[in-house]
Amino acid sequence: MEFTTQLRDLEKEVIKDKTEKMVREIGDLQYQMYAEKKHSILIVLQGLDASGKDGLVRDLLEYCNPVGVSVYSFKKPTPEEYAHDFLWRVHKQAPAKGMLQVFVRSHYEDILVPAVEGFIPPEIIEKRYALINDFEELLEQNGTKVIKFLMAVSEEQQLERLNERITNPEKHWKHNDGDWDTLKKREQYLKVYQDIFTRCNGIPWHVIPSDKNWQKNWVAAGILLKTLQDMNLQWPPLETEIFRKQDS
Amino acid sequence: MEFTTQLRDLEKEVIKDKTEKMVREIGDLQYQMYAEKKHSILIVLQGLDASGKDGLVRDLLEYCNPVGVSVYSFKKPTPEEYAHDFLWRVHKQAPAKGMLQVFVRSHYEDILVPAVEGFIPPEIIEKRYALINDFEELLEQNGTKVIKFLMAVSEEQQLERLNERITNPEKHWKHNDGDWDTLKKREQYLKVYQDIFTRCNGIPWHVIPSDKNWQKNWVAAGILLKTLQDMNLQWPPLETEIFRKQDS
Repeated sequence: MEFTTQLRDLEKEVIKDKTEKMVREIGDLQYQMYAEKKHSILIVLQGLDASGKDGLVRDLLEYCNPVGVSVYSFKKPTPEEYAHDFLWRVHKQAPAKGMLQVFVRSHYEDILVPAVEGFIPPEIIEKRYALINDFEELLEQNGTKVIKFLMAVSEEQQLERLNERITNPEKHWKHNDGDWDTLKKREQYLKVYQDIFTRCNGIPWHVIPSDKNWQKNWVAAGILLKTLQDMNLQWPPLETEIFRKQDS
Repeated sequence: MEFTTQLRDLEKEVIKDKTEKMVREIGDLQYQMYAEKKHSILIVLQGLDASGKDGLVRDLLEYCNPVGVSVYSFKKPTPEEYAHDFLWRVHKQAPAKGMLQVFVRSHYEDILVPAVEGFIPPEIIEKRYALINDFEELLEQNGTKVIKFLMAVSEEQQLERLNERITNPEKHWKHNDGDWDTLKKREQYLKVYQDIFTRCNGIPWHVIPSDKNWQKNWVAAGILLKTLQDMNLQWPPLETEIFRKQDS
């Protein structure tokens, strides 16, 4: 048993090193994407409470230049937002060309929460699946690569982390009585996620195993890096009317 | 001479190590400021072309959590922005409580550019000094600590960096013919900066020597870290109606 543990620790260290290298490369490519201003990326980060969304943002974007990065956390809609269609506030946060935008929670909350809590008629929720597909398609057609992450955390781990928010003074601020209510509805939320996976899959979902941070970072970094690599980014040519161009 | 160089190199390495530690501490405190949601910081980053503004943002905020950071680069105003007062678009980007906001260029451009280029009557520019002071005071009264950096780069270094944008393909995208025009007006811009330092000094300016990146990072990190330390940040208490509070 001790031998197995050592092997696992070794594996963990190897993977952490690999992740560090990938995260550095993500930083380089992100800045090139910012320079080229041809593509953009939207990371849609969904996950149950305490699945480690904020931590992933920090670890994944460590070497990115904040000039080209924007993170938006969606909260309960304001009265002004409620007075519009559900995508109005979301669309405003779509990334400009060159930008890497992260949504912490997203338009999928507008299916998840009303479906579980039941405060919007099912026939209205029903229509949102197609509306979301159309919206994401609009973004992709404009050069935005949409990456959808579901951060999957086990019930045991979730319970442990919610408890830590009560016992650890540095985590009190993350505590919310309502999260315990939501935990009880875990199965109902996962059921709606199944519907979402089935019906909003034109742009694929990536499930990120999130019980362990080093695994979470490794899987997510691999997907983000691949996306950036596939863009075949180029440094833009010199634009000038007063200097002789290098390649002409 | 060789001995002197070695000494300088040693000094450089020592300072780089110290800066790394400070930048890590900035990351820790930034996240605590984000948790507490009582204070916010606005870094106003001014500097001549090629003074290294984007690089400073990257190096200074490496360990911050992007969830609590926002960077906004002010460009030439859009027609909609021109149709409003000059602070309208700036005010929209003011940081919410808990946030660290960086302005890359700022409302000071609305004095600098028209004063040098002469497209706005002097009596209108004249009034902007006091309006800016009032605006910054408004932000400070709401818990925003405003930090003003002028990144000072020598004419030789500026020339070298603008040239590199022509010769280095990875920097072509930063090139702008207009920057050479601005370089010729360097003295005029510095003269307006003197006016700004004299008349908008209720919140002090920090001049950051920016010819060398390690010096630039060191000086700026020291000021930002001190600002965060002086906030006497606290982890918020547990807010709950269903659990017994730890300290009651």
